[in-house]
Amino acid sequence: MDLRQARTIKERREALEKELRVKLAHIGVFSLDEKAASTKNCENMIGAAQIPMGVAGPLKVKSMNGERLLTNNYYIPLATTEGALVASVNRGCKAITESGGVTVDSYRAGATRGPVFRVQNVIESKRLCCFLEDHIDDLKRVAEQTSHHIQLEKISSIGVGRYHFVRFGFDTQDAMGMNMVTIATDAIASYIQEQTGISCLSLSGNYCVDKKPSWQNVINNRGIVVWAEATITKNVLTNVLKTSAKKVYDVWLGKCMIGSAMSGSMAFNAQFANIVAALFAATGQDIAHVVEGSLGVTTAEVVEENLYISVYLPDLMVGTVGGGTGLATQKEALSLLGVVGGDDGKNAQRLAELIGATVLAGELSLLSSLEEGSLAKAHQRLGRGKTV
Amino acid sequence: MDLRQARTIKERREALEKELRVKLAHIGVFSLDEKAASTKNCENMIGAAQIPMGVAGPLKVKSMNGERLLTNNYYIPLATTEGALVASVNRGCKAITESGGVTVDSYRAGATRGPVFRVQNVIESKRLCCFLEDHIDDLKRVAEQTSHHIQLEKISSIGVGRYHFVRFGFDTQDAMGMNMVTIATDAIASYIQEQTGISCLSLSGNYCVDKKPSWQNVINNRGIVVWAEATITKNVLTNVLKTSAKKVYDVWLGKCMIGSAMSGSMAFNAQFANIVAALFAATGQDIAHVVEGSLGVTTAEVVEENLYISVYLPDLMVGTVGGGTGLATQKEALSLLGVVGGDDGKNAQRLAELIGATVLAGELSLLSSLEEGSLAKAHQRLGRGKTV
Amino acid sequence: MDLRQARTIKERREALEKELRVKLAHIGVFSLDEKAASTKNCENMIGAAQIPMGVAGPLKVKSMNGERLLTNNYYIPLATTEGALVASVNRGCKAITESGGVTVDSYRAGATRGPVFRVQNVIESKRLCCFLEDHIDDLKRVAEQTSHHIQLEKISSIGVGRYHFVRFGFDTQDAMGMNMVTIATDAIASYIQEQTGISCLSLSGNYCVDKKPSWQNVINNRGIVVWAEATITKNVLTNVLKTSAKKVYDVWLGKCMIGSAMSGSMAFNAQFANIVAALFAATGQDIAHVVEGSLGVTTAEVVEENLYISVYLPDLMVGTVGGGTGLATQKEALSLLGVVGGDDGKNAQRLAELIGATVLAGELSLLSSLEEGSLAKAHQRLGRGKTV
Amino acid sequence: MDLRQARTIKERREALEKELRVKLAHIGVFSLDEKAASTKNCENMIGAAQIPMGVAGPLKVKSMNGERLLTNNYYIPLATTEGALVASVNRGCKAITESGGVTVDSYRAGATRGPVFRVQNVIESKRLCCFLEDHIDDLKRVAEQTSHHIQLEKISSIGVGRYHFVRFGFDTQDAMGMNMVTIATDAIASYIQEQTGISCLSLSGNYCVDKKPSWQNVINNRGIVVWAEATITKNVLTNVLKTSAKKVYDVWLGKCMIGSAMSGSMAFNAQFANIVAALFAATGQDIAHVVEGSLGVTTAEVVEENLYISVYLPDLMVGTVGGGTGLATQKEALSLLGVVGGDDGKNAQRLAELIGATVLAGELSLLSSLEEGSLAKAHQRLGRGKTV
Repeated sequence: MDLRQARTIKERREALEKELRVKLAHIGVFSLDEKAASTKNCENMIGAAQIPMGVAGPLKVKSMNGERLLTNNYYIPLATTEGALVASVNRGCKAITESGGVTVDSYRAGATRGPVFRVQNVIESKRLCCFLEDHIDDLKRVAEQTSHHIQLEKISSIGVGRYHFVRFGFDTQDAMGMNMVTIATDAIASYIQEQTGISCLSLSGNYCVDKKPSWQNVINNRGIVVWAEATITKNVLTNVLKTSAKKVYDVWLGKCMIGSAMSGSMAFNAQFANIVAALFAATGQDIAHVVEGSLGVTTAEVVEENLYISVYLPDLMVGTVGGGTGLATQKEALSLLGVVGGDDGKNAQRLAELIGATVLAGELSLLSSLEEGSLAKAHQRLGRGKTV
Repeated sequence: MDLRQARTIKERREALEKELRVKLAHIGVFSLDEKAASTKNCENMIGAAQIPMGVAGPLKVKSMNGERLLTNNYYIPLATTEGALVASVNRGCKAITESGGVTVDSYRAGATRGPVFRVQNVIESKRLCCFLEDHIDDLKRVAEQTSHHIQLEKISSIGVGRYHFVRFGFDTQDAMGMNMVTIATDAIASYIQEQTGISCLSLSGNYCVDKKPSWQNVINNRGIVVWAEATITKNVLTNVLKTSAKKVYDVWLGKCMIGSAMSGSMAFNAQFANIVAALFAATGQDIAHVVEGSLGVTTAEVVEENLYISVYLPDLMVGTVGGGTGLATQKEALSLLGVVGGDDGKNAQRLAELIGATVLAGELSLLSSLEEGSLAKAHQRLGRGKTV
Repeated sequence: MDLRQARTIKERREALEKELRVKLAHIGVFSLDEKAASTKNCENMIGAAQIPMGVAGPLKVKSMNGERLLTNNYYIPLATTEGALVASVNRGCKAITESGGVTVDSYRAGATRGPVFRVQNVIESKRLCCFLEDHIDDLKRVAEQTSHHIQLEKISSIGVGRYHFVRFGFDTQDAMGMNMVTIATDAIASYIQEQTGISCLSLSGNYCVDKKPSWQNVINNRGIVVWAEATITKNVLTNVLKTSAKKVYDVWLGKCMIGSAMSGSMAFNAQFANIVAALFAATGQDIAHVVEGSLGVTTAEVVEENLYISVYLPDLMVGTVGGGTGLATQKEALSLLGVVGGDDGKNAQRLAELIGATVLAGELSLLSSLEEGSLAKAHQRLGRGKTV
Repeated sequence: MDLRQARTIKERREALEKELRVKLAHIGVFSLDEKAASTKNCENMIGAAQIPMGVAGPLKVKSMNGERLLTNNYYIPLATTEGALVASVNRGCKAITESGGVTVDSYRAGATRGPVFRVQNVIESKRLCCFLEDHIDDLKRVAEQTSHHIQLEKISSIGVGRYHFVRFGFDTQDAMGMNMVTIATDAIASYIQEQTGISCLSLSGNYCVDKKPSWQNVINNRGIVVWAEATITKNVLTNVLKTSAKKVYDVWLGKCMIGSAMSGSMAFNAQFANIVAALFAATGQDIAHVVEGSLGVTTAEVVEENLYISVYLPDLMVGTVGGGTGLATQKEALSLLGVVGGDDGKNAQRLAELIGATVLAGELSLLSSLEEGSLAKAHQRLGRGKTV
């Protein structure tokens, strides 16, 4: 059997084993729905990568529900190959929960697509800009004809030379939504071309900005914006984290603020990416979006002898429907958080808030361990490879 | 059984199922070595996330071997939940291979750790700087005592106020190495403190820069630096990619250069992150390092009617030993590429080059599809969610 | 006479001459109104720095006036100490004018002030955000009570931890306006504090962003936004600039796009800063704003054998009233451009457009000279120090 | 008299007056050497812009001289059109001097030029990289043949696609040196082309990076690097600055650190640009270099009830010979600082340190006034336009 003729996952795997003389015994062990996965999620499928999944928690989370705060405890699923990560997050969860919990808030900035149009000159560029302003209702209508789950909410645009970049922002309910917004933007672009004669050079002009670190997304936001904060008591700092508010604060200032400034970093935090990656892998998010999820700012303050600590995540592209969220293991991970499927956008937003809450636990734990000098020791003792 | 008393993966899973009233039937299906995974890779393990794995290829790769170019064909394992990605990379592989293959080159910049020290004033800051310059041999010795697989290769440092940031660069052979460099840096920091009385505030001062987008890493490099290039013939552009050199070039310039400049992006490419993420997940890399792997520049040129296309990846943190590379499915994915285990650093470098080659295939394919306007149509037809 | 007792410019100068044993014969030669300058522009005044002023031009400029283009020729005043700059700009003006002129367009983004407020927690942060949305008319009223020449036009805000940053955007007519917007923002901040109990930590929270390179200003604009473009004919490229469209294009792509991307530059141009600095010094602008004026993007295209070239300046903080614009020599420089004093914002906008047009001339000239390799030779021949 | 036929400054001015019907009475009043200025500093000269010059001080400065600290008092010349600036700096000087003075340190990173070469492919790119490594002595020799005052000290290079960027770093003694380094780089580029057949696309590939904000310069430095620090006593904070250490610290953290992080700023300070601009204009520096001088980091700490404050300037391009430093008023300003002419690089370095010391005074003063809320009030009272 030649690989190109292989039609099933098994055939493909066996063809590879034969051709490359390797054994793929484990890749072939998986329980997810082959048919669905191989048509919706992965072409040329040969099996699955298994990534160990652990849980951290319970994590006490207080989220704003209108005027009131709702409190719940959560166990957080984390899929990772990096030893010490789950333990580290777990320690953060313990410290936060024993201090009364983490408060979260969020805002739906929306999924964006940023095509680039080709104009003849600065005058046509201005004409396109005016067209967009004058036809916003038409553009909304065109976009919304492509799906019941999408709404065009924001447009910003800027010309440079004979290019005109437009950033369309959409509400995509519980879907991360890049598929939908691409289709909607394609329809919008066709409409614009029909009406103005100005053609679209590329449906994505890196003005979205998708899966790249960008100030556009940090400053003007993308996906769901999340804030999480907690005040860690002196007692917990001493007993759980073996440190003090002042020590964590000093590490935070030197590392997350001054260190990031000195190294030209776009991320003013300790390890957002580690937690975002583990949660994204567990819950079926697009892991390339970890790039955007790594952005954001941690703040710390000493309040009396307690530690106020917060995280701000400006750009979380997540969803609870579509993409990898329907795969069996990923769906089960979402079920741990109580956010399976669609719920008028509320599930995606709750997922984002829980990611923010867990990111806070990760920051707290790492900043405490860096200070106490125990980071290297823990690694050495356990023979593990977690990085910060 | 309460979760906190659970000792085995199964007990933990069952405790969660009971407490949260969810079913975790699939997370419990996996073949990887429970004991190893639950101690080396993931604490509080409850099972595994299964991520569909496909292959793209064959991809013809020419790598520099001393003065000669070695040619090989590769099948590339990609673990992803995003439909259309493997198909897209596959199309790029086909176009490249039919055009004669991709040439790769690489350079080992090394894993880095960037601690921050606390000094009394600008005079002590200068003293620390001089100490580092004068004691480089001692520091090398201290570092190398921590492991047979590590060598301290580079030191750069800068003071600001009462902080002094130092960036240590190491050769870690075939390991991605963050564990090793953390331990080595800890030893170095202790030595510095003994000798100078200047203490280390944090083993990582975000001057490494680990898992954050940063100009430090783009400009001064980190991990393995990779270049890959190919010239796609007019014939292949027409028949395989349904486009032309000029059209791909125009999209590249508008999107990867001008679009990225306009949006304050640190990444001047089309979709590095997608390919890096899928290869990292498949081969057991730390997926939080996708953040660094998303950085880099794509260039394109029309040469007669052919298309020259290249990628430059300044910051690939990868390895073939340690971390998740020893897990069963991940090891099998590495075996597809012929880079299982250690080989004096050559395996990690080859893996990095293959990632670069595949990234090139991804860029070529996406830039072609954006131009031809088929991106949205493909998504619509297949009901899929790949994003760019 | 001791310096501290000196009351007049002359006394101060003589005290310094005596104390430091230096001669200040030239600093004391100036014609500008001592009284006005020493009270409005410069405390502890001892005289004036004389910066040589030259003119470049004529430069043929076509600006949009409603639906029509108005054409005028201008002589551009440039104050500089760097030999070759005026000659270089002059060459660019010649090439543009002989090719039919430069087309300009502009947009008043407005002067901004970005204070930072202190909140108790994420809930209060949200409350402040809502307050701003709900009281925009009140805030406008408060702002406009501080001056007849100011209007509050835009508000954006973001919380992070216990900080809340707000960016207020104002129309300040023909004034660059930082004085006015500071006073207006102070009034707004007081009002907010009265109404909400939330206090302002700093009237400027570096969220303005004033006199610092920032993506906030590049992406969301500040001051006046300007576009300028021209198509240089093959004939002019050959005879005036001794080059070809293809050669200029190649230099532009390698330098302004790829070079800037590789070096982490926020400016994708050749030498905006040189021209902006010389025009700012000549016309009494705040030369610290050269920092913002250096930002922006140059584009080039080969159109048949002609060269299309454009500049985009996202952040020009300029005015024709207030600050240094009333000083005698600076006012005369403004008179050369026909933009002395206030005219409902039109003079400032015209000045900004002329700066954009001149910046285009500078880009064209330098990109041509870099290609032809004549840059160093010109410097060598003339013994001059112009830098690029 | 037609402008194009005008040969003298007076003729040019009169031709403009006639053609544009304006009066240029003041631009024609200046004392600097017309012949020298019009040939070395400014083509098509019509006169001079007069910028009011004031002095701040005395400022007590302690600079490192081998192992010892040398203390001197300085009066700082500032040329500015922005009211309140000199007064603000003066207040900072007073506070610093009464607290015992400012300690400065510096390092000569060197002037840089970053040409871009065109290579055929990744293999030739590697060949060029090796050539540079193997021929460093030859390149030094070639560079040094172009001037007695220049030495090639550093080379770094990176390839991307068919481009290869090289950054040459030079010691240029007391000259800012861009003229020299351009000529030297031209000679080096010719030599490289002769020896390798690889041609230079552009003498500046924006890899220098000249007069643009760039992380390359922040991280790897350019020109002269300066540190300045002082500890302001509680008494001075109370009596001179009307504030407290804690208040200044809070403003610093919110504005210079968190605010700059939130707005994507490359500069983590309060107003470096204002002071750098005024000193550059006064002392004949290239004012377009204010862009680079605006970069840098301010730090603050509360030490008991005193305030430690520091500035770090990574990129000061200054000199005491060449460019505008020989003009009469500029030379006199340099004489106030005791740094006229060349002295084996020592004068330029001392000038840079004094700029750093003055920048510190500016930061201290502004951060104090922002806190006390007096910024707007001062402006309102004086009817002035200083901006921050």
